[in-house]
Order: sequence, then structure tokens, then C-alpha cells
Amino acid sequence: MPHASERTTKYCSALVGCVAVVICAVYVTKSAAQSANVSNASPIFGVTIPPGYRDWKLIAVDELRTDKVDQLRAQLGNEIAIKALKEGKTPFPDGSIIAALHWTRVPSEENNKVLAGPFPGAQSFVVGSAVNVQFMVKDSKKYAATGGWGFADFKNGKPGDEALHKACFPCHEPAKAHDFVFARYAPTP
Amino acid sequence: MPHASERTTKYCSALVGCVAVVICAVYVTKSAAQSANVSNASPIFGVTIPPGYRDWKLIAVDELRTDKVDQLRAQLGNEIAIKALKEGKTPFPDGSIIAALHWTRVPSEENNKVLAGPFPGAQSFVVGSAVNVQFMVKDSKKYAATGGWGFADFKNGKPGDEALHKACFPCHEPAKAHDFVFARYAPTP
Repeated sequence: MPHASERTTKYCSALVGCVAVVICAVYVTKSAAQSANVSNASPIFGVTIPPGYRDWKLIAVDELRTDKVDQLRAQLGNEIAIKALKEGKTPFPDGSIIAALHWTRVPSEENNKVLAGPFPGAQSFVVGSAVNVQFMVKDSKKYAATGGWGFADFKNGKPGDEALHKACFPCHEPAKAHDFVFARYAPTP
Repeated sequence: MPHASERTTKYCSALVGCVAVVICAVYVTKSAAQSANVSNASPIFGVTIPPGYRDWKLIAVDELRTDKVDQLRAQLGNEIAIKALKEGKTPFPDGSIIAALHWTRVPSEENNKVLAGPFPGAQSFVVGSAVNVQFMVKDSKKYAATGGWGFADFKNGKPGDEALHKACFPCHEPAKAHDFVFARYAPTP
């Protein structure tokens, strides 16, 4: 396994935050870069937090563990994104927004107490504290250089730095066959 | 650790399905039992699958592992339940419904390939197949004997048996301080 350089490591820290959905980009239009001059918008892409995203519909959930993070995650979509996902259509239409919510993964003592008798060794993990939220915003013209997607990563309401956001699109490129979106619509039980 | 009897084990299998939200009950009103005579309704409680529940708002996500199950889970709520959770108010008002969606937890080869270079050993788990869905329906009069909640567990659209549903309320009793609901509203990142 090759050792990543410091610079690569920094960029790839963003990658970890990007697996489920994502952020960032290397090639970026001038206009998009200009609109990033707003303190509460993501660098490069100028994406701000969409109001009410916490109430969007569920796409899927996932779990990510590295030597640095241990998270439970959920991806939510606005109406345009959800419609496309349900229909299984890509590319996503302009106006689609996908939100990736990340929390720490913590053992639930309350649940484990209930499980302990009948299921010795059972482990329940629940959401701990909020870590960050990421967005992918589809605008095929504005973000033509990055697969039609603008990216954003926020922690406590504040966007990450430019280096972080530069890593978003390269990370998502392997998901090109699904319009650069890693998340799949979870089946309805 | 005491060994559970066969009967207890059967009931407690339901419990595992109940940790995040839950099903079942021991004390049940006659009228509720009667309304269970509908093939697509849960035994004892007569709860049917609420239309459109897959589009409800997200409460939280969790993970459950025992020697029998390995799942990623999400809890969704209808408008009445979500409002109560956001306001932090219990007991939940009548009309509240909470849905617990359960999927198998599977490694994501797609995600792990992206992570492999920069994060050797990183593990991404995503939703596999749908396992079951459970509902808690609040009706303080109809379900007075079971904390005001009616329970239901469905697999492929079919409700589980009476034994399974008898286990729901006893499992949820330890969560009495939160109106018998284990799930907590996940913080907004």
C-alpha cells in the first residue's frame, strides 16, 4: 500500500467525508469561484446550507469507520433528487440536492441493557453528536467542470476550507456511472 | 447470564427487532384484539402499514448486531411525531406514528475501493436488503393497556404472528421515561 504524501493525506481526509455523498472539485469555473466570496458559502462552489434540509426525505443510511472516524450517516434528498432516485434515472436533473448527515457512532447503554438478557453480546449503536453535513447541488451549467455538481461541507454551520473542497470531485469520480453519487436509494421494507 | 427459555427466546427475538422503536404487548384490550382480524393488520393491535411512510422525516439511524442479525436502521416519523420530537415533548400526542426501517448491513466494495489508498483498513457499510419495518401508533384510549401505543411488525408487507407482537410492549417498557420510545431525535449537523 503506497504511503500518501502529506498533501494527499489532507485532501483525502475530505474524501473520508465524501464517501456517501461528497464535496469539492479540482476544475472549477471562474463564476463559481467568485460566488464563494460569501463567508457562509463553500469555497470554490459557493454552496450555502439549504433551509430545511433536516426534513428532507431519506435516501439511505451507512456507516464509516477509519482510524480517524467512527460514524453513522444518513443521506437525504430534496424533492427533485428523491424523484430521480425513485425512478432510477441518471443524470440527476438540475436542482437536485443531496445532503449527507454525519454523526458519531456510539454504543447505546439503554438498548444494550434491554438486549443483555436474551442476547448476550448484542451490540446496539446509536447516533452520538453531529459531526458535519455535506451537500451536492446539481447545476449542469454552473458546475460543468465538476460533473455538474457543486459541493459543500459544513461543520457547526461553517464551511470547510478550499483544500477540503478541492478533494470532493476527485473523490466522487469513481461513482461516475451513478452521476458521481455514491448513495443508492434504500429499498422500502 | 441466565439462559432464556425457548418461549422467552422466541419472544425476545421480537425484542431484537424492537430496540429502536418496537411492536407487541402483553395486556391488550378486547376491541384492539378484534380489529386484528384483518390479514394485512398486525395481530393484537390491528395496525396496518401507513401509506407513504417511506417518505416521512428522519428521526435517527442506528445499528444492531447480535448473533442473529447485523443491521443498519432508520426511524422515521409522521408530522405529529416529528413535531413532538423536535419540541422534546412527551408523551407523544395521539396520532403520532413512528416507523422503524431495518436493512441488512453490508460492506460497500465501491466505497472501500475509494478509501483503500488513503485509508488502509477503512470500512464502509451500506444498506443491503430490506429486512422488516415496524410501527408504533399512538392512541391513548385504544391502546391504554400498552402505554398508549399500538405495535406492528411487517416483513414483505405481511404482519408477524401474535407471539412476536406480544413481545413488543414488554420490550419497550424500559423506555417508559421517553413514552416507551427508544429512538431520540438525531441532532442537526
